[in-house]
Amino acid sequence: MVRRYDILVIGGGAAGFTAAITAKILYRDSKVLMVTKTDKSPIVCALPYAIAGNRPLDDYLMPYSYASSLGVEILVDEVVDIDTEERVARTRGGEEIRFDNLVIATGSRPEAYMAEGVDLKGVYVLGKEYREVAELREAVNRDGVRVVLVGSGLTTAELADALSGIPGLTDHVKRYVTIVSRRKYILSRYFDEEFAELAERELEAKGVTIYSNTRVKRIHGHGRVEEVELDNGEVVKADVVVIVPTWVPNTELASRAGLEIRGRGIVVNDYMRTSKPYIYAAGDCVEKRDFLTSDQRDIKLATLACEEARRAISAIKGVTLSAGRMGRIPVTVTRVGGVVMGAAGYIESHALNEGISYIVGKARAVNRHPAWLPGGCEIQVKLLFLEDGRLIGGQAAGRCNEVAEIVNSIALAIQGSLRVEDLIIGLQHGSHPLLTYSPVMHPLINAAVEAYLKMKN
Amino acid sequence: MVRRYDILVIGGGAAGFTAAITAKILYRDSKVLMVTKTDKSPIVCALPYAIAGNRPLDDYLMPYSYASSLGVEILVDEVVDIDTEERVARTRGGEEIRFDNLVIATGSRPEAYMAEGVDLKGVYVLGKEYREVAELREAVNRDGVRVVLVGSGLTTAELADALSGIPGLTDHVKRYVTIVSRRKYILSRYFDEEFAELAERELEAKGVTIYSNTRVKRIHGHGRVEEVELDNGEVVKADVVVIVPTWVPNTELASRAGLEIRGRGIVVNDYMRTSKPYIYAAGDCVEKRDFLTSDQRDIKLATLACEEARRAISAIKGVTLSAGRMGRIPVTVTRVGGVVMGAAGYIESHALNEGISYIVGKARAVNRHPAWLPGGCEIQVKLLFLEDGRLIGGQAAGRCNEVAEIVNSIALAIQGSLRVEDLIIGLQHGSHPLLTYSPVMHPLINAAVEAYLKMKN
Repeated sequence: MVRRYDILVIGGGAAGFTAAITAKILYRDSKVLMVTKTDKSPIVCALPYAIAGNRPLDDYLMPYSYASSLGVEILVDEVVDIDTEERVARTRGGEEIRFDNLVIATGSRPEAYMAEGVDLKGVYVLGKEYREVAELREAVNRDGVRVVLVGSGLTTAELADALSGIPGLTDHVKRYVTIVSRRKYILSRYFDEEFAELAERELEAKGVTIYSNTRVKRIHGHGRVEEVELDNGEVVKADVVVIVPTWVPNTELASRAGLEIRGRGIVVNDYMRTSKPYIYAAGDCVEKRDFLTSDQRDIKLATLACEEARRAISAIKGVTLSAGRMGRIPVTVTRVGGVVMGAAGYIESHALNEGISYIVGKARAVNRHPAWLPGGCEIQVKLLFLEDGRLIGGQAAGRCNEVAEIVNSIALAIQGSLRVEDLIIGLQHGSHPLLTYSPVMHPLINAAVEAYLKMKN
Repeated sequence: MVRRYDILVIGGGAAGFTAAITAKILYRDSKVLMVTKTDKSPIVCALPYAIAGNRPLDDYLMPYSYASSLGVEILVDEVVDIDTEERVARTRGGEEIRFDNLVIATGSRPEAYMAEGVDLKGVYVLGKEYREVAELREAVNRDGVRVVLVGSGLTTAELADALSGIPGLTDHVKRYVTIVSRRKYILSRYFDEEFAELAERELEAKGVTIYSNTRVKRIHGHGRVEEVELDNGEVVKADVVVIVPTWVPNTELASRAGLEIRGRGIVVNDYMRTSKPYIYAAGDCVEKRDFLTSDQRDIKLATLACEEARRAISAIKGVTLSAGRMGRIPVTVTRVGGVVMGAAGYIESHALNEGISYIVGKARAVNRHPAWLPGGCEIQVKLLFLEDGRLIGGQAAGRCNEVAEIVNSIALAIQGSLRVEDLIIGLQHGSHPLLTYSPVMHPLINAAVEAYLKMKN
C-alpha cells in the first residue's frame, strides 16, 4: 500500500519535530508524517546535562509523544530516495510515501579533527544519537574520572561546567576536567574577550584546567586512552577524551534528489523553499545567511532551526512576514558556573572579519533600584553599532537568569533596525524596584549613549 | 548676581533628575542647573518598600549625589515664575536664573477621594514627599498595627504586599492589612481579570483582606481613626488608613508662563517641545497620548518620564527618532507576593473602552527544557492583536523575575509593529535548557499561533 500525506517531514530533530507539530497545529485536518531514524532522540541543547546528569538519559529526550498527541504520525525509518517530480519518498524499510509537501530536516553530522590515537578505547567524538550519548554518559559517570575535552565552543564550555558539577543536576560523582582549545579563549566564536574570560574564570573556579592556543598532538594508551599529548609538550592524564566536533549539514539525500546545494547547505529562499516546488528544507541542513551582509554564514542554533521549520510549514499556505522582518539574528545564551551570558547579532571579531566598521558602547547596572535591594545582580552590556547608528549586536552577562531575556530584548531591537538614537530616547521598557534596573540608569540606554558620544566626537 | 545656564531643569523627580544627568552626559561642557524643592526625594516607584521597610528611609532616596558628581548644579528652591520671552526663571528664594533651554518637570500631585472623617489622626493621603513618607512610615511600623488601604492600583497592591511582609525587606513587624477597592479587581486598570486575580490570590494568601466593588462611606474615631465604615455596611477596625490618591499634573507654573495646556497636561510635541521655543516639558506634568489612537491617555510611569526627559534633552541638539519609533508603549511590571506580572500596551478592557476590535492568543510554558530541569517557572502569556494582525498588547505572569524582561520583549515587539505572522515565523530569540523555554514551545509564538488560527477560521 502506498501511503499519502499532505505534509511529510524527514527528520526528528528540533527542525523536523517543530515542522511536524506546527503542521498539525496550523492545518488541523492535514495528514502529517514525521520520519525519524530513531524514536529516542536526545534534546541536543541539553546534551551536556544529559551526559553529566544524575537523572536517566530518557529524561532528556525530544517529546515525540506530544507530537503523537497532536495527531502527527511517526515512522521510525530512513528516507533514502526522493522523487521530486512524482513527489514520492522511499525508505530503507521499503515504504513508499506520497506527499503534497515535503520538509527536509536532515540536520547535521559531526566532523572532528582526528589526532593520532583517536581509535583508542575511551576516546569519543561527541554525537547526538541516543546510543552514542548513552555510551559517553556511562564513561564519564564514574567517581574520580579524568575527562579531557577537545573543543572551544558552547558545548565544550557547557560540558565542562556540567562535568565539574552543577548542584542537584550533575554533581553525583566527582570528575577532573581539562579543556584543550585551539583558540585564545573558549567561546571566542560567540563572545568578545571580556565576556569569554568570564566563562573561563567560572570554569577555573570550579577546578577545570584550560589549555588555550593548544592542539592535541597525540593520544596515548595501550588499547585504552591513558594520556593526551599537547602540541606545547605537556601531557595530560585522561580516562576519557571527548572530541567536540564541528557540525556539517547532512545534504546527501537532498543532493541525490537534485536539489540545489551551495557551500555545504541546501539552498532555500526566505521562506525555506528549495529549488523544487513543494519541497522545503529547515534546520542545520540548509545554508544560512548573515542578517546584515546576506553572505553565507555557519550558524547552527536550535532557535533558528525551529524558526525555519515554522517558516517552511507556514509557507505552504503562503504566510509571509512584514517588510524588513526577514533577517534572522543569531542569538546565543548560556550559563557557565554562576554566570549567565548571551550574545545577539554581531560581536567585534565577527565584524572585523567581515570588514564592517562599528562603534561600541558599554554599560553596567544592578537590576534593582535602589541597587542594594535584595536579589540584585550586576549586568554588563556591550552594544555594537554601525557608523550610521544602526544596532547590529549586543552582549550581556551577569549572575542571574534575567540576562537571557535581556539578550532576547537586544535581539528584537536589532531585528527592529533600531538606531542609537532610538535606544537613547525610544527604548520601550518597564521597570520595578524589586525586578529591574532604574529607568534612570538603564544599561542598554547608557551603552547607546556611550556609543553615540563616540560617533559625534 | 544673575545666574546663567545652558540648561535649566525644574523638578527633581524621575523626569527632572534624568533630564539633568542626561544633559551633562550628552553635553559635557554645558552648564546645567536642577532646581528641586527638596534635597531628599524618595524614589516614587519604591515608596511601598520605603514605607514598610526595615531599613532607613534615607536608603530609598533619589541619588542626587550622582548628579552632582557629573557636574549638575543643584538648587533647593522653587521656581515661581518663568519669563519665556526673556528666558528667565525666578525662585521663591529670590534667585533670578537665565537659561538657554528649559525643561519643566514639575510632576504630579495627589488628588484623593475625601470621605467624611479623613481629618482624623491616623488617616493619610499617600504623598511622595520625604516628610509625608516619613510620617506614614512611622505610623505603620508598629507591631500589630491594623492598616486599611483605600485604592485599586499598583501602589495599593504593592503597599499591601510590602506591609504584609516581604522576607528580609519589610517583615520586621507584624501588620494586619485590608484593601478597600472600588473596582471589581485590584489592578484592573493594568491587567485583565485572570492576571489581576493572581495578585489578589497572592495577597489573600499573605493574610490581606480585600473588599472589592466597595467604597469607604465614613471614617470613625475620637480624634484618632478607630473604624472604617464601608458602603456595604461592613465596619473594619483600623489604626491607620492610607488613601492612595490619583495623581494629577502640576501645571500651574507652566500655565502662568503662558504655555499651552490641554486636558490636564502641558502640550508637547513628540520631542517634548512645548508651545514656546527653547522650553520643553517631561514627566507626569505633560499630556500623554496613546501609541495606537494618539488620543489623550492618563498614563503615569517612571519609565515614560525618564524617556521623555531624554527626548527633551536630546531635542536641544536635534536628535531624532527613526521612522515609526514615535509611539511610547506603557509597560507595567510588578511583583505581588511570589508572582511577577507585567503588561505592555493594550489590555482587553482598554481596547473595549476605545472600541478597538482585537483577537486574543494565550499560551503557557515552563522556562526550562526539559521542563523538569531545576529552577523552572511556568509563565503564562496573553497577547492582543488587531484584526489585521498587528500586535497591540501583551501580559505575562509567573513566579520568577524573568517575567519582567519577557514583558520588555513584548514591548519591543509592539514598538516594532510586529504582526502575528512575524511572531510565528520571525520572532528573534535565544534559548538554553537551564534558562528559557524550548524554542519548540515558546509561549509568545504559541500565543500568536492561537490568535492566528482564530483570525483565519
